Amino acid sequence: MSEALARLGNASSLHTSGRRARRAVEESREALAAALGARPSEVLFTAGGTESDNLAVKGIFWARRAADPARRRILASTVEHHAVLDAVEWLVEHEAAEVTWLEVDALGRVRPETLEAALRAAPGEIALVTVMWANNEVGTVNDMAELAAVADRYGVPLHTDAVQAVETLPVDFAASGVSALTMTGHKVGGPYGVGALLLSRDVGCTPLLHGGGQEREVRSGTLDVPAVLGFASAVREAVESRTSHGPELTALRDDLVRGVREVVPDAVLNGDPGDGAVGGGPSRLPGNAHFTFPGCEGDSLLMLLDAKGIECSTGSACTAGVAEPSHVLLAMGAEPKAARGSLRFSLGHNSTVADVKALTEAIGPVVQRARGAGTAGLRRTSVRASAPTEV
Amino acid sequence: MSEALARLGNASSLHTSGRRARRAVEESREALAAALGARPSEVLFTAGGTESDNLAVKGIFWARRAADPARRRILASTVEHHAVLDAVEWLVEHEAAEVTWLEVDALGRVRPETLEAALRAAPGEIALVTVMWANNEVGTVNDMAELAAVADRYGVPLHTDAVQAVETLPVDFAASGVSALTMTGHKVGGPYGVGALLLSRDVGCTPLLHGGGQEREVRSGTLDVPAVLGFASAVREAVESRTSHGPELTALRDDLVRGVREVVPDAVLNGDPGDGAVGGGPSRLPGNAHFTFPGCEGDSLLMLLDAKGIECSTGSACTAGVAEPSHVLLAMGAEPKAARGSLRFSLGHNSTVADVKALTEAIGPVVQRARGAGTAGLRRTSVRASAPTEV
Repeated sequence: MSEALARLGNASSLHTSGRRARRAVEESREALAAALGARPSEVLFTAGGTESDNLAVKGIFWARRAADPARRRILASTVEHHAVLDAVEWLVEHEAAEVTWLEVDALGRVRPETLEAALRAAPGEIALVTVMWANNEVGTVNDMAELAAVADRYGVPLHTDAVQAVETLPVDFAASGVSALTMTGHKVGGPYGVGALLLSRDVGCTPLLHGGGQEREVRSGTLDVPAVLGFASAVREAVESRTSHGPELTALRDDLVRGVREVVPDAVLNGDPGDGAVGGGPSRLPGNAHFTFPGCEGDSLLMLLDAKGIECSTGSACTAGVAEPSHVLLAMGAEPKAARGSLRFSLGHNSTVADVKALTEAIGPVVQRARGAGTAGLRRTSVRASAPTEV
Repeated sequence: MSEALARLGNASSLHTSGRRARRAVEESREALAAALGARPSEVLFTAGGTESDNLAVKGIFWARRAADPARRRILASTVEHHAVLDAVEWLVEHEAAEVTWLEVDALGRVRPETLEAALRAAPGEIALVTVMWANNEVGTVNDMAELAAVADRYGVPLHTDAVQAVETLPVDFAASGVSALTMTGHKVGGPYGVGALLLSRDVGCTPLLHGGGQEREVRSGTLDVPAVLGFASAVREAVESRTSHGPELTALRDDLVRGVREVVPDAVLNGDPGDGAVGGGPSRLPGNAHFTFPGCEGDSLLMLLDAKGIECSTGSACTAGVAEPSHVLLAMGAEPKAARGSLRFSLGHNSTVADVKALTEAIGPVVQRARGAGTAGLRRTSVRASAPTEV
C-alpha cells in the first residue's frame, strides 16, 4: 500500500497511468472474488461496511419497490449492526417502508422457521431480507445457506452483513446463496476506508452515490487504488490461513473463557457456547468472547482494564460511549442492568497466550473494584464518543 | 500515512488505542478547518468528492423539504460534475424534486443575475442552490462570495463543489458565505478515498449513510485514520504554498497555451482566458488548459499523446470512454463536433518546463495525424471505462 500511495493514476482515466491503476483494481477484484466464491463482476468496491450495508438495504429496497410498488416490507433481524438497523428505520420513516423484525433465540441466532413465518405472512410485500452472518457483539453465527434457501423459496433477495465473518468463517458467496454480502477491510487485517458489497448480477440496486458511473453504475466515485490493493491482499491472506488461524483462535478464546470463569465464577458467557458447528464452520466467531459480569458497569470494567493495558469494548465501537444497554443483548432476552455489565473481548492475529494470561490475572481484581465502584455510584460515561470537539 | 497504516485503533473505541486514533482525527480536523476558514465542527470526513456532493445535494434537499414541503426545487448550474448533476436528476426522478438549471455564459461562468432571476422566480420553493467553485474541465472560476450573497438574500443554502479549487484558489469557507463545500484528498496532493463536506452548523442535512453516528450523526462509518491524516496534511501544505504555487503554475500554463497555439494556430482555448481576477484569485484554475482542436477526435489525440508519454484527458476522468460530447462544452455553446475534438491538460506539483516543451513539440504532428485519422474514420472508444471485467 505504501508503494501504491506514491503512484499516480485515476483508474477511470484512459492514459497509461490510468490503465495501470485500472489493471491493479481489476486484479484485486479478481483475487477477492476468487477468495470468496464470487465472480469479479459481483464485487463492488465501497468505502467500508457502513456504506455497503446502507447501499444494500436502501438500494435493493428502492429497486424492488420501483419494480413492484407492493414490495415495501423489509425483514431484518433484531440484532443487526446499526448500519443496517438505522438504514431500515430511515426507510420506514422516510420512504414508507414497513418492517418485520426477525426475533433471535437466547443465543442470538435467527431460526429458519422465524424467517419462514415472516415470509409466509406477507409473501407479496417483501422487498428484501437482511440477516447478519455473525454477530459483532456476541459472535453468534447464523446458518446463512439455510436462511438464503428459505428466502429463495419466496423469491426474495437476502442481504447479509458478513463484516465479522470473512476472516474466520467459511464464507463462499455462490455456495451460500445470498444475493448481497457486506464486507470491510479493517475486519480482515486490511485497511480502513475500503470495503465491498458482493452483489448478484440479477439483483437490482439503486445507487446511493451517483456520478461517474464506476462499479457497474451502482457506486460512483474515484477508486481508491492503494486501499483496494491492500484490501484484496488482506482478504486473500485471511482466506488462505483461515483453516489454521480459526482453530488457533478458538483454542485461545476457549482458554480465555475458562480462565475468566475460574476467577469470576458468576461471569456469564453470552451467545453461542462455541462448541457446535454451523454451515460447515464454528457456531461462534473464533476470536469472540462476550461476558456479563453481574453487579458491574461495563464502562468501569473497560476503563480499569485499559489502565492495565488490556483493550476491550462494551459492545460495538460504533456505539461506544452511548449510555444505553446493547440492543443485541436485550434482543436475546437480557435485563437492561445485566446488559450494561457486559464486555466484549476480541482476539486477532497478534493475540498470544501471554495476552490471555494477562487478562485472566487482571480480571478478578478489576471486577471486584468495579463492583465496589458500582455500589458507590460511579459516574457513567454519557457523551457520545463520536461527537467532534467544538471550539 | 505509511506509519499510521500500521497502527491499530478504531477512533470510536474508548480504550487507549481508540482515544489515540480519535486524537489524531481531531487534530487533523482542526488543521483542515484552520487552513480553510472553517470551524472544526463544520468538517465532516467522507470517502471523497462524489460522496460529499451526493450528501450535500440529497441531504440538504431532504432536510429542507422535511422542514417545508414546498421547498423541493434545486437550482444547479449546467456545468456541474456528474456527482452533482446525477444526484440532482435522481432526486427529480425519485423524490419529486424540481430543478431550475442555471445557464452559464460562453466562458462557463454562472452570472449572479442568472442566480438572482432563478431565485426570484420561485422564492418559496427552493431547497438549495449548487454551483461549483471552479469547473473541472475548462477551469473557469465562479465568484462564490457574490453567488452566496445572492442566495443568502433569499435565505437559501448554497452548496459548492470546490474539489478543483482548494489547491490553488483562495478558498475560505466562512468568508465565502457558502453553506456547504465539497472537497477531496486526491485533488490536493493527498490520498484517494477520503474527502470532506464542510457544512454550516445551521444547515440541516439528512444522512446518506446511517449507522454508528460518527461525524455529527451526518456520516456514519469507521473513520479512516491514516487517510484523514494524509488528507489534512496535504490540505495544510497546499494552502501554505498556495500563494507561490498558484502563480508558478499559471506561468507554466500560459507557456503551454502559447506554445500550443504557435504550433496549432486554429486551436481554441476554452473557458476563461485566465488573465482576470475573480473573488481575490485567478479567473481560471492555474493548472488548467483546455483546447478544442478542430477536425480531431479527442480520444485519438489522447492516445497519440499517451504513446509519447504525455497523459491528458478528454474531459472528466469520471466519464472517460463515454462516447458523448462534454456537457460542459455544450452548455457553453459549443457544437457537439467541436466538443468531441477537445483535450484537457492539467499541470500540478511535479510539472516542469521540460514537460511543457515535450507537449509543444509533440502536439503539432499529433494533431496532424489525428486529422488524417479523423477523415479515415478512426474507430472511437465506446466502452465505458469503468465497466468491470466480466469472466
